[in-house]
Amino acid sequence: MEDFLININGQIHNGPEAQISVFDRGFLYGDSVYEATRTFNKKPFRIDQHIERLFQSAEKISLTPTFSREQILSEVLKTIHAGSASDATVRIVLTRGTNSDLGLDPELSGPNNLIIFTKEIKPNPAWWIADGVSMIFFQKKIEASGSLPKTGNYQENILAHKEAHAQKAYDAFLVNTHGFVTEGTTSNAWIIKDGVLYTPPLKDGVLDGLTRRALLEMAKRQKIILPLIEKSLNKDDFRNCDECFITSTTRNIVPVTKIEGRNVGSGSPGVMTLELLKQYLEFVN
Amino acid sequence: MEDFLININGQIHNGPEAQISVFDRGFLYGDSVYEATRTFNKKPFRIDQHIERLFQSAEKISLTPTFSREQILSEVLKTIHAGSASDATVRIVLTRGTNSDLGLDPELSGPNNLIIFTKEIKPNPAWWIADGVSMIFFQKKIEASGSLPKTGNYQENILAHKEAHAQKAYDAFLVNTHGFVTEGTTSNAWIIKDGVLYTPPLKDGVLDGLTRRALLEMAKRQKIILPLIEKSLNKDDFRNCDECFITSTTRNIVPVTKIEGRNVGSGSPGVMTLELLKQYLEFVN
Repeated sequence: MEDFLININGQIHNGPEAQISVFDRGFLYGDSVYEATRTFNKKPFRIDQHIERLFQSAEKISLTPTFSREQILSEVLKTIHAGSASDATVRIVLTRGTNSDLGLDPELSGPNNLIIFTKEIKPNPAWWIADGVSMIFFQKKIEASGSLPKTGNYQENILAHKEAHAQKAYDAFLVNTHGFVTEGTTSNAWIIKDGVLYTPPLKDGVLDGLTRRALLEMAKRQKIILPLIEKSLNKDDFRNCDECFITSTTRNIVPVTKIEGRNVGSGSPGVMTLELLKQYLEFVN
Repeated sequence: MEDFLININGQIHNGPEAQISVFDRGFLYGDSVYEATRTFNKKPFRIDQHIERLFQSAEKISLTPTFSREQILSEVLKTIHAGSASDATVRIVLTRGTNSDLGLDPELSGPNNLIIFTKEIKPNPAWWIADGVSMIFFQKKIEASGSLPKTGNYQENILAHKEAHAQKAYDAFLVNTHGFVTEGTTSNAWIIKDGVLYTPPLKDGVLDGLTRRALLEMAKRQKIILPLIEKSLNKDDFRNCDECFITSTTRNIVPVTKIEGRNVGSGSPGVMTLELLKQYLEFVN
């Protein structure tokens, strides 16, 4: 783990030495928000949007930031430049702070703790593109309502991921309480059907992913080959699509070739999916 | 905070110095379970039941304990005896472990981390008994299903508690997606109506509280003055009851005299509630 750099409230540590108080509310109660992005050639991808979204997540859980946007940006850049990797993953965690006593009351909390993780990104495994990945469906219990904050309460997604592994799948598509597919456990979900690209709308309870946003922007500016529609999609829409893929900031676009053990389309990564990946990489680089 | 003793994987620290890796999955994802109990005269209250319930919570989130029940008991006793308090709060946190990398996959995790907090309990404030406390209702979004695990995903309860404070109330009663009142944010909920004591059943999504269990046991053995029925209760049942109280291991029985700003019964702590508190303290001491 020594290739991690961890910035805790401005101090940079190596991975194994980075520690936080057991009274941190992120540790005690999952009372924190986070963002994950990456660098391309030392430059953080859409960092302003990520920091903005971090503040939106904070607002959704009534967490009042004691760091400014500028302070967070400056600490992110400091951490990136302290490392040697040109392509690095960047995780930003903001917790409500360290409690002076056990208890839920936010008034027990001191100022926020800001933790930034950076680490060199390894290229995606070649088989993701050659073969695609497999997914299952996982029924959520938390009622969906609008775009989700990214918080330290991640247990439902861990259960979904664990269930996927138990079934020898790569990951799970989450299904909301209304029966709509929302996203992967750490990715956004997409299908192609009859030459049209679809993704679920934020209102179904979807993380407002930055790669998702980039694809929406590319579609608006007609930089992608397909028309794009945001629309509620159920399990059958996914089962019966021509192509399927997931997106995330660190993994870009990953083809999905099996859902619940059955082939998506031909069972090989889709031609249009691979073309979108090419166009996406040109767009962000 | 110096009066806290914290045992981390067998090492005892003073509160402010007790730290955990930022790769601990409790910190990253709320991927942990916990128990809270107390000592009476250095003896932990129903510690075997608490440890058993910790293992049940672990099972519900597919967390495989790498500590045995005996090891946890031994560390709890060690921590209690390292302190001077005869009446102490005891919090036991078991996280899935420290990750070797960022990622949800439980296979990234090393062995569990076991953290035990102990601290002298201050007596309940006198006004809780003299005046009682006030409560609001808070609508949950997480669908209830059976008795709840006690986990590090506590954000919904934090929001409920924060909303209660914003409304100048002591705490909130959580209301499940079916409209039934389940519990307080860190307590069980009880009402008395026409000489009968009622509490919501575990199936409504209720923490299997140890003080709750003790009262059920006392009722079974006819050690309390009232008949006791477990029954789904809605907001109107609480609004129109004769007496109301909450229970928790550290606070015992606390009378509730206001709900949503309106008096419960006469607006003073109920006569039967105070009698139950007396009987409860005799029972556990």
